[in-house]
Parts: sequence; C-alpha cells; structure tokens
Amino acid sequence: MIADLKWLDISVTLQDGMVHWPGDPAVHITLVQAMKDGCCANLTQLNMSAHTGTHMDAPRHYLQSGASMEQMPLSAGMGTARVIVIEDAHEIGLAELIRHAPQPGERLLFRTRNSDTNWENGEFMPDFVALSVAAAHYLAECKVRTVGVDYLSVGGFHSDGTAIHRALLEGGIWIIEGLNLRQAPAGNYELICLPLKIMGADGAPARAVLRPLEPQGV
Amino acid sequence: MIADLKWLDISVTLQDGMVHWPGDPAVHITLVQAMKDGCCANLTQLNMSAHTGTHMDAPRHYLQSGASMEQMPLSAGMGTARVIVIEDAHEIGLAELIRHAPQPGERLLFRTRNSDTNWENGEFMPDFVALSVAAAHYLAECKVRTVGVDYLSVGGFHSDGTAIHRALLEGGIWIIEGLNLRQAPAGNYELICLPLKIMGADGAPARAVLRPLEPQGV
Repeated sequence: MIADLKWLDISVTLQDGMVHWPGDPAVHITLVQAMKDGCCANLTQLNMSAHTGTHMDAPRHYLQSGASMEQMPLSAGMGTARVIVIEDAHEIGLAELIRHAPQPGERLLFRTRNSDTNWENGEFMPDFVALSVAAAHYLAECKVRTVGVDYLSVGGFHSDGTAIHRALLEGGIWIIEGLNLRQAPAGNYELICLPLKIMGADGAPARAVLRPLEPQGV
Repeated sequence: MIADLKWLDISVTLQDGMVHWPGDPAVHITLVQAMKDGCCANLTQLNMSAHTGTHMDAPRHYLQSGASMEQMPLSAGMGTARVIVIEDAHEIGLAELIRHAPQPGERLLFRTRNSDTNWENGEFMPDFVALSVAAAHYLAECKVRTVGVDYLSVGGFHSDGTAIHRALLEGGIWIIEGLNLRQAPAGNYELICLPLKIMGADGAPARAVLRPLEPQGV
C-alpha cells in the first residue's frame, strides 16, 4: 500500500529564476492572473527547459531516433532502487562503481558531495560531481535500468557530456537528473519517479519520492 | 511493492498546441536545440499554464492566503482512491453523489462522459461535465481528501467555477483536473498522483497512475 508517512521527497523545488544548465532557457515562473490585482483566481505560467530541476532524460535527448518521454515505460521510474554514496569528491569513477557491483535491471541513485549543498538555490556550480566516460560505459555494460544523479547532468561541465549521455542512453538506461538526495542514506528503497508525459520530448520535469525497504540495507 | 505492470497511466499526454482553458496561456512545446540542425542534443522548452493537461489545483488558486503547491502533503495524491462512474450526462450532481456516500478522507475520482472522448486532442469542449455548486459543498461537508475530474476543471464553463473551486478548496480538498479515466472501471484503487513541486504556485502539472486494489470493488 502507498502509505504516505514514510515517503521521502527527493525532488528539488522549482522556482522562478532558479539555476539551470548554462545556455539552456532560463526558468520563468510567473503569475499571469493575480487575485491581488482583482482577478478571480491566481494563475501561474511556466516557461522553462524540459531539463529543469529534477527531471528525466529520454534517449531522444542525444539519439535522434531514440524514444521520447511519452514512450517511457513506467518501470524506468518505479520500483526498487539503491542509493549509493560516492566518496570521490571529483567524479563518479569506474573503480568506485566496480566496488558497488551494479546488477542488471537495477535503478541506481548516486549521492555525491553535490548533495551537501542546497544547490538548487545557488548559482550554477561548474565543478559538480558527475560520471566519468568509463563509468558510463561500465553502467551500460552492467545493463542497469536507471541512473539518477544529484545535480543537473550525468556529464560534468568540463567533461564529455555527449559521450557520457550517449553511453547511458545507447545502453537503454533511463536517466534521472537533479535529485535531492541529502536526506537519503545509502541503502535499498522503493522509488517512484514520475515525469510529465510530453509528446516527442527529449526530457521532462519529474517528481520523485523514495521509501526505505524493510529491512533496510538488504 | 511498486510493481510496474499493473499500473494504469491516467495522465493525458502534453502536446504543443493542445487544448487549454479559454483565456489561459497557450501550450507551446518547442525544440530550441535540434540534432537535425547540427546541435549535439535535442532540447525541448515548455511554455504553458501550470493548469495544463493533467494537473493539480492548490488552495492558492482561489484563496489568496491558501497553501501553494510546494506545501502539498504527498498524501493528497498518494493512497487509496475510489473511481465513481457518473451517469448524469450534464453534471456531477448532489443526488447522484449522495448515493455513493463519500467518506471522510476519501480520494474520489469522477469518471463522466468526458472520458468517452480523447478530449485532450480536440478543441475546447464547453459543455463538459463538471460538479454542481451543491455537489462541491457536499463533498466539503463529507470531508473528502481529494477530488479528481476527467476534464480541465471541477467547475463548468457556463457555471460558477469560482464558487465550485472555493467550496472544495476552503474545505481543505486538493483537486486533480484533466485525468484520463477511460480505462478505469468503477472501483477501489491505489493512486499515485505526483505534481511538480513549484514554489508559490496555485497549481502544477502532474503525472498520475492507478492500480486496482485486491480484491477490486470492495
């Protein structure tokens, strides 16, 4: 059963003017009808990239003939998941990943030092922790189902973001970016990550929640 | 456990130019970077009302000091829910509601003749089935938790939408609008409806899924 009390919200809050990937459209969240101005209702308008805040990437993001968001199987975002705490302060690297032995079909959420800050309220942080190219290829070889990260991209700002995305997406992996994992200890969970269903889109904003599995740490 | 196979997606698909409430911002979903034009990635931008497609209304929509979307308890959208099939082709009226005996804390999803069409692909349909003012007040008196409807508003186009929204929202009821219930028979379900978490917002687009309770129809 979906009891509400134990769910942990791992989504960041969307806000007008919030941090976004450099070069992507800015985030504008504005009141276009306001009761304080005499309107009968308040009405908010959203204007932002589909890759804002907590969001998912579809294969179409980097593969021209890849699946788009409305084709995503719900199982990409719903099911058991493992939170892995990454100790490396610079990257999610191959050696550290190997120690965690990713399994086929796993949903892996990587908690890094990115989660030590409320990054969603700050400026863009170019030195965030992201996957290495080798780590991305390894996750694809391991045939994991889903990869989640705690900043705006699986690929670093100074690294080869295209190669990293393509390695995952060509491997059939669905990607969750922009998670807030600061309240999630390492362990096994139930994950529900539901992105907006957007026709033809390369990504979509999402809401994501976690619940520890009983017993935790299995 | 969150097994994926039994979940029914009751969200409509967001599309560029899709139907929206008259007077609200139009729905623009556009590619701002395109691989076919030589970019390294595809990138979609969203520009739309927060009340587009399947979405939730926060109290702030019609109550100036009401809670906004980021304050929504997850339990408003997650938990048991009952799908009620409404026979009246004109409104969700008081007499028919009384026969279904709404209970305190229930999440009620009303399937009407709106669901007989793929309304999300058509023009705005001004004669859609919506709550009557009396029915809205009755649901508030019954202290239901959440009300879901299968078109863009709980209030009709020719009726008193303000009174209907306010009766529900002042009663502490969270509202889901724009559901696709055409594959959901009457009965009891688990509901997961996760709206985007938007600071200060009067509403938010959402993804919603249903799973029949075992045994169904209890």
